[in-house]
Amino acid sequence: MNYEKMELGKLDNLNEKVFLHDSLNLTGCEISMNRASKGYKVPFNHKHKENEEVYIILKGKGFIEVDGEKLEVQEGSVVKIKPDGIRNIENPNDEDMLFIVIQTKQGSLKGFTAEDAEIL
Amino acid sequence: MNYEKMELGKLDNLNEKVFLHDSLNLTGCEISMNRASKGYKVPFNHKHKENEEVYIILKGKGFIEVDGEKLEVQEGSVVKIKPDGIRNIENPNDEDMLFIVIQTKQGSLKGFTAEDAEIL
Repeated sequence: MNYEKMELGKLDNLNEKVFLHDSLNLTGCEISMNRASKGYKVPFNHKHKENEEVYIILKGKGFIEVDGEKLEVQEGSVVKIKPDGIRNIENPNDEDMLFIVIQTKQGSLKGFTAEDAEIL
Repeated sequence: MNYEKMELGKLDNLNEKVFLHDSLNLTGCEISMNRASKGYKVPFNHKHKENEEVYIILKGKGFIEVDGEKLEVQEGSVVKIKPDGIRNIENPNDEDMLFIVIQTKQGSLKGFTAEDAEIL
């Protein structure tokens, strides 16, 4: 079978962090779905050895910090962070912030979209 | 600089399809943000040579077809499709369907999360 499917339910009711890699047997990325309520902040900064991360803010607003620079983010903000960037994310606001984090190996994508697709 | 940032604006007002790869110089994935209004269907089926795709439905509902099997999808559905899966997506409903497609090279992810992160 060429697909795997899961149901997260209504996104406003997400658990704080749901990882998709193991549930879907992903082989090209890890994806986490996140709901950050008021006061959320990862309790440590981190960087990566080999992986690039993309943060997509789906709802609410807050801050992503990279190498000491605090970026305002809100619904529709997308931030790519190279492995070396020292990062954190926080939500000091009343409204929950929903966001997705996609982790892939830096430099791993070869052809894509038109180049990789076969139209049938 | 270790980050790049862009703003898509309110997701309900997205263009039909916005690709992120070139705007953010992504190197591990292509990501498209999609808004499918009533009657949307890709005008052809397609599969991939090397890339795995993950569809995340953010809002609304519709169908993803894989190898002739029609899967009902709705807010919170996530579907991974292997390169060989012949696929399409459609929205026959009045409500717009918002979804993300993440394309990565199959088998490209090595360590991730705890294994790839350096806690600081």
